[in-house]
Amino acid sequence: MSDVALPGIVVAGGSGRMGRMLIELIGASDACRLVGVTVAPGHRWAGHDLGEAMGGAPSGVPVTDDPIEVVARAQTVIDFTTPAATVAMSELAAQARAVHVVGTTGLETADIAALERAARHATVIRAGNMSLGVNLLTQLVTRVAAALDADYDIEIVEAHHRHKVDAPSGTALMLGEAAAAGRGVALDAVAERGRDGITGARERGRIGFHAIRGGDIVGEHDVIFAAEGERIVLRHVASDRSVFARGAIKAALWGQGRAPGSYDMLDVLDLR
Amino acid sequence: MSDVALPGIVVAGGSGRMGRMLIELIGASDACRLVGVTVAPGHRWAGHDLGEAMGGAPSGVPVTDDPIEVVARAQTVIDFTTPAATVAMSELAAQARAVHVVGTTGLETADIAALERAARHATVIRAGNMSLGVNLLTQLVTRVAAALDADYDIEIVEAHHRHKVDAPSGTALMLGEAAAAGRGVALDAVAERGRDGITGARERGRIGFHAIRGGDIVGEHDVIFAAEGERIVLRHVASDRSVFARGAIKAALWGQGRAPGSYDMLDVLDLR
Amino acid sequence: MSDVALPGIVVAGGSGRMGRMLIELIGASDACRLVGVTVAPGHRWAGHDLGEAMGGAPSGVPVTDDPIEVVARAQTVIDFTTPAATVAMSELAAQARAVHVVGTTGLETADIAALERAARHATVIRAGNMSLGVNLLTQLVTRVAAALDADYDIEIVEAHHRHKVDAPSGTALMLGEAAAAGRGVALDAVAERGRDGITGARERGRIGFHAIRGGDIVGEHDVIFAAEGERIVLRHVASDRSVFARGAIKAALWGQGRAPGSYDMLDVLDLR
Amino acid sequence: MSDVALPGIVVAGGSGRMGRMLIELIGASDACRLVGVTVAPGHRWAGHDLGEAMGGAPSGVPVTDDPIEVVARAQTVIDFTTPAATVAMSELAAQARAVHVVGTTGLETADIAALERAARHATVIRAGNMSLGVNLLTQLVTRVAAALDADYDIEIVEAHHRHKVDAPSGTALMLGEAAAAGRGVALDAVAERGRDGITGARERGRIGFHAIRGGDIVGEHDVIFAAEGERIVLRHVASDRSVFARGAIKAALWGQGRAPGSYDMLDVLDLR
Repeated sequence: MSDVALPGIVVAGGSGRMGRMLIELIGASDACRLVGVTVAPGHRWAGHDLGEAMGGAPSGVPVTDDPIEVVARAQTVIDFTTPAATVAMSELAAQARAVHVVGTTGLETADIAALERAARHATVIRAGNMSLGVNLLTQLVTRVAAALDADYDIEIVEAHHRHKVDAPSGTALMLGEAAAAGRGVALDAVAERGRDGITGARERGRIGFHAIRGGDIVGEHDVIFAAEGERIVLRHVASDRSVFARGAIKAALWGQGRAPGSYDMLDVLDLR
Repeated sequence: MSDVALPGIVVAGGSGRMGRMLIELIGASDACRLVGVTVAPGHRWAGHDLGEAMGGAPSGVPVTDDPIEVVARAQTVIDFTTPAATVAMSELAAQARAVHVVGTTGLETADIAALERAARHATVIRAGNMSLGVNLLTQLVTRVAAALDADYDIEIVEAHHRHKVDAPSGTALMLGEAAAAGRGVALDAVAERGRDGITGARERGRIGFHAIRGGDIVGEHDVIFAAEGERIVLRHVASDRSVFARGAIKAALWGQGRAPGSYDMLDVLDLR
Repeated sequence: MSDVALPGIVVAGGSGRMGRMLIELIGASDACRLVGVTVAPGHRWAGHDLGEAMGGAPSGVPVTDDPIEVVARAQTVIDFTTPAATVAMSELAAQARAVHVVGTTGLETADIAALERAARHATVIRAGNMSLGVNLLTQLVTRVAAALDADYDIEIVEAHHRHKVDAPSGTALMLGEAAAAGRGVALDAVAERGRDGITGARERGRIGFHAIRGGDIVGEHDVIFAAEGERIVLRHVASDRSVFARGAIKAALWGQGRAPGSYDMLDVLDLR
Repeated sequence: MSDVALPGIVVAGGSGRMGRMLIELIGASDACRLVGVTVAPGHRWAGHDLGEAMGGAPSGVPVTDDPIEVVARAQTVIDFTTPAATVAMSELAAQARAVHVVGTTGLETADIAALERAARHATVIRAGNMSLGVNLLTQLVTRVAAALDADYDIEIVEAHHRHKVDAPSGTALMLGEAAAAGRGVALDAVAERGRDGITGARERGRIGFHAIRGGDIVGEHDVIFAAEGERIVLRHVASDRSVFARGAIKAALWGQGRAPGSYDMLDVLDLR
């Protein structure tokens, strides 16, 4: 793990839930090593050794609230922070020629434009959902929807924990968009939500959505293609949120030595 | 199969879809035998041998449009016909001391009263759904709902073919009633259908319904009890409609030698 | 259905289970029409009108045990018969420039060579499994296995009716081959069947097989890719055997006007 | 949460994984309160305030390595420790008339005898699996197996993470025992594991087992009853190990004011 030949990673926002998960997973990896952690300005970890900051033994990994101190020594920055912090980081990473893996959400048009500018000189990998599985599933859904005609009724069933406040989930909608794209239609024109009462027979070409809520379900998505005589179901089950962190690390490794430019998880997974 | 010691069954309404299925299953059974078939007045099968009427070799089983001719020789009548025919049959069956298995739907209060009168002198077994599995599942749902408190969120998911015009299915509602009964609440007060949009967190104690429609799905029902840390799912899958016919034959055999009275599938399955 | 502009199809082996299903589905289709049926030499249907042979009204469709009589008027022959009959048919179809859709199983090397010779002059479409869904799933499995590394444990679970005599199913093995191909390994080197007892931890890279048997299950296949934090499941459920017939008809329509050559369902589905 | 009218609970073995989970869950409960924690002799937490020992603010809950100090003030002791510690605790709990909830595994005959002696004077609740769901499912399986005959083929499918070293799981075997008991047969006489190759048709009355291994699956169990025309599936999914802790707390509350005696989770769930 101290092999200097391994790509060195800086985790931005290391004190948050995603940051801690990244720190743990990079520590356990034999394909990369952790060289620094950034935290929000003034955070109590700033200026300390990471191991000690976390209540353990010294680790040799510095924590700082000034990214300049650590980015220069990194081959990659993994960044699940805020839009403003991410935009600032993109310049530093580009100067350091470090790969910038961005999982930050809530980016606006101007933020994205800033990342695109950085991508002229550096490798930027950005995705709204870093899970390999969901990204892959999205691709499969488009492919299957394109291969099959509307004799195959599409229904999307998702299940999440009882605390989730919106329905259907963003990922279910993303899968619905993928299915509609495969068919060459707009999702809004065919989406069917909340089937109830005397509905009449199912209308050909519709895409149904169902949102199950209960217990502590992390996230499950089924895309069903049901025809006379057969059904295909493409299913994703998330069992913990570490899948996002794993996706980011995979992206970090994939980006090593990659030409400057803007990439996403479909590139990482070679799914284009 | 010609063993005269086996209970003799008359199939009422033998030319219909359910009747034909019963004829086929009784023919294949080594626990009972077919002794007669009734058809609607004037049906072309009337007065013929069943085998010949169905385009095959003679079977020795008579078909008639006058039930009196065949009920006297039966130990049981299985009856999926119309309310009027069923009420008329109940008197004949009672006179013959034959078990009357009734799967007819659409019975009104007066019809049921007539069946109850017949049940003073004869064994009448009646159920809206003759499937062993669904009846059993209904019992399990009540039991589980009673054993678990509202920390277990209940969601009912059903799937049917694209031609079904109502949602949720009657069986899903029956399962919902069973769950509500187990909790000692009224289903209407807690049912949640068509979850969509910004719903807020799931409200404790609600029972959610979801109706998937697609392809040729015969009928699938999941009752989910989802809590922190675990889920129980009680699932029923119908793969063909013969399950109703099988339930009726099981009821017919169960009724042999049974004291007069009014019974249902819960009695047959010893689920009370 | 009598529109002469629609492609005319001959069903070879029309009196068998698959033949009857094809006859029914073509009759119900508005994209093709049935122009003739062949049966085995000496079959009692030979020389009769199809409708009358099946016990109904005249249909205008001839049945023959001499394929020459009907192939000349067809744009396509759909053929689920025997290897010998299929080889003989391939010559006739090629002479008539009719598309030859072959679902016959048990073909040997010499038979396939004969079909390849016919394919120099005519369009031959052949597949061991005509189900759109299974063919599509096979492609997805290869794709997913190639996209994901061995951090994703692959398990294949199939379920079939109680009468099935072999395990795992041929389709499960086909899916296993597809997964192994995606990983660039030989299935034999990694297949794990019959896990039982003190097995030790799962060995990385293995592909597990499980064969559920019960009731009347037509055929269900799950290919599971399970990692830390997430799972993808690719699932196929066959609800009746008509899916093979539907696949054949789709192939027949796809083949109209196609250049001579040898094709399979992956071509039909545009999955290469 | 500081309501002294709530039952006071001592967590034995509070520094272990299960102990910490119990501490967290009791802290979040509004039906009971934590009054003390025991640890192994010499553990660094001993003699400290629990909150401080765990690196937080003072909680007012003492930690001790001498159970006598805390048991006297408890209405219940929840105990997932070692056989020796549990036997010693059983005497103390009996003297204090505290309910003793025992989830300790590996108890030998002599240990159980000691617990039975304590149960003459106190309420002892013991179970090998404290999950409500699994205990309930076990009861349902027996019930369904008894209600249905061998026309319903039973298959048990379990899935666990890749590190599990034995197959099938102990819970799967427990479910198999429950099914066999419902049928009045011995599991050993009917169990079928590792179906592979030319097996012939499924033998009536057998109970099949399948062990899926992959990723980080916490534990999933399906008991399938598959017949002609229908299937019932009883399914349990564990999503985290807290379900054992939750079961223990439920047992603790159930035991308040209960007559002395030996109980298990079936009593707690009122499933006998």
